[in-house]
Amino acid sequence: MHTQRVELGQRSYDIYLENGLLQRAGQVLGTRNLHKAVTIITNTTIAPLYLEVLKISLHKQGFKTREIILPDGEQYKTLDSMRSIYDTLLEFGLDRSSSLIALGGGVIGDMTGFAAATFLRGIPFVQIPTTLLAQVDSSVGGKTGVNLPGGKNMVGSFYQPVAVLIDPLVLETLPVRELRAGISEVIKYGIINDQDLFGFLEANMPSILNLDTKSIAEVIIRCCRIKAVITSQDETEKGVRAHLNFGHTVGHAVETLTGYSKYLHGEAVAIGIVAAAVLSCSLGFCGEADVTRITNLIQAAGLPATVPPFSVADYTNAMLKDKKKSGSTLNFVLVKQVGEVCLSPVSQDQLEILFDGDSAPCS
Amino acid sequence: MHTQRVELGQRSYDIYLENGLLQRAGQVLGTRNLHKAVTIITNTTIAPLYLEVLKISLHKQGFKTREIILPDGEQYKTLDSMRSIYDTLLEFGLDRSSSLIALGGGVIGDMTGFAAATFLRGIPFVQIPTTLLAQVDSSVGGKTGVNLPGGKNMVGSFYQPVAVLIDPLVLETLPVRELRAGISEVIKYGIINDQDLFGFLEANMPSILNLDTKSIAEVIIRCCRIKAVITSQDETEKGVRAHLNFGHTVGHAVETLTGYSKYLHGEAVAIGIVAAAVLSCSLGFCGEADVTRITNLIQAAGLPATVPPFSVADYTNAMLKDKKKSGSTLNFVLVKQVGEVCLSPVSQDQLEILFDGDSAPCS
Repeated sequence: MHTQRVELGQRSYDIYLENGLLQRAGQVLGTRNLHKAVTIITNTTIAPLYLEVLKISLHKQGFKTREIILPDGEQYKTLDSMRSIYDTLLEFGLDRSSSLIALGGGVIGDMTGFAAATFLRGIPFVQIPTTLLAQVDSSVGGKTGVNLPGGKNMVGSFYQPVAVLIDPLVLETLPVRELRAGISEVIKYGIINDQDLFGFLEANMPSILNLDTKSIAEVIIRCCRIKAVITSQDETEKGVRAHLNFGHTVGHAVETLTGYSKYLHGEAVAIGIVAAAVLSCSLGFCGEADVTRITNLIQAAGLPATVPPFSVADYTNAMLKDKKKSGSTLNFVLVKQVGEVCLSPVSQDQLEILFDGDSAPCS
Repeated sequence: MHTQRVELGQRSYDIYLENGLLQRAGQVLGTRNLHKAVTIITNTTIAPLYLEVLKISLHKQGFKTREIILPDGEQYKTLDSMRSIYDTLLEFGLDRSSSLIALGGGVIGDMTGFAAATFLRGIPFVQIPTTLLAQVDSSVGGKTGVNLPGGKNMVGSFYQPVAVLIDPLVLETLPVRELRAGISEVIKYGIINDQDLFGFLEANMPSILNLDTKSIAEVIIRCCRIKAVITSQDETEKGVRAHLNFGHTVGHAVETLTGYSKYLHGEAVAIGIVAAAVLSCSLGFCGEADVTRITNLIQAAGLPATVPPFSVADYTNAMLKDKKKSGSTLNFVLVKQVGEVCLSPVSQDQLEILFDGDSAPCS
């Protein structure tokens, strides 16, 4: 079993990765200092696939389990869902020694984490991510929360899990479109921090998309290592953690403008990654060769690379509403070269190149 | 100006106390590293009294202010109110550099703190408490949250303010019933930690109730000091902070059983304080003389001392639903002597003495 520590003082925890780990979840959690009453929060898609095997594994180690099964989808990541989770936890008679387990993708992880952060002012929780995106990104680092009608992840908190259990074998039931969407975040890690990972992706994309056991495990481990290090350095995103938002400024705008229905998050991020690369090149931060490599890799993963046609004003407004902005300046994570990025303010004029439809990127 | 530090590493902050401090709030906050855009959250009772003076003081120091004015009352401390706060903050276009100011009693402080803890995953906030209860207790220590239909403070987080500004002069507009209710928490501090404070209260209750400037400031300072020390030792109530719940186990049950309408929180706590003292004596933790002193002081403050007539089963059920319980054991904070308490499990049989109507307390 591979173990990756996330160092956060008293709030430190381990990420465990192993093929088939879901069946040994009880064993791993049995070694943690957890009360034996746990509530599993999952959704209607994951429950028929993996809830039973998780419960059996937990029962073997003496855990008593209850479950909350939510409808599947980003549209349910709301305050209303939180209210229904709280009411059920209260019905179950949970106290501060009880803990929660998130079994699902990013939506389940974010909501379970936020419930754990806020129910009785905080109870322990465990992440068992079942999508590639959640395994490499959202399950690690403690970002939790829900969407408001006015914006994504507008309400939430930084609240760390006590453990993250990753079983790459569960990806076998993941729809291929979601697998590709997760790869978008993997490519992001390569660009912001790890040119070797980027090279590995360039060399092995077909076998990764084919869920080759060794390649996919290698990819997840490398991403978790990067996320763990960055989270340790900057838990609440006051500095370097902002690099993880590479591709997300335009990506979030794409999601907002298309009503969260046309693109999966990872697909919107793919578009945002290419846009950020083009912008970086046009501002002289990187060369055209980097843009080509990045665009090619995004396309090799079967991900979209072109911004949908909205006006510059629409994009700018959507981006200014994003919570990562500070005042009225748009801060972008820009590419210096594959493996290295930096934060830089970008003016609205400079953005036009991305959204006016026919410019050459690196003039 | 009196200053009391709450030591919490990176999250440390100061409590400032001075007569007339509200008019100098801008000056004090001007020295903090706060962005100049602040949103004041207050209620319909406090706004006509103190919002203008606070705004003038802030504007003088270059702060730009906006305000959210909520209806007054514990019945509005709900997830629905949170949703309306979030929506307004979003409308205001707040970003992570903006901060909130709670101007009001415990309800406003708890909700503003929870909004600050969760909006955009956390923004800074300042407490300006306007009730005695909030000044000596709820504004310090970082407990934030809202009630659920199923229980008080069931959703929330530990989230510390960046400063607490206490102006004892605002107590002059506080209804006398609320002043007395606040004294209940003051008496609690004497019992759990400070026999000198308890003696001071015994000697000076009339002048305190009369808002004698010197006495009331002395009382608030001593309480804040105790709260600051205990919070520093145990921010998230894993140990000694539980002592602050003295009187609250029965107190919360009284509130629940009477539908939060008959008693103010401090009044219910007063009943709970006397009940906890009687229980302590009946279990041999303290002597009858302590019970008498405590009961006399509660009565000298004009506070209720007798549990309302519900069955032992009703009380036990209400207490078991309280979030401070661990498993099915009831843990009580019991008096060893005035100035010293301890945590001890109490069986349901042992509770009968409190609720069966006619026992002699210390047999």
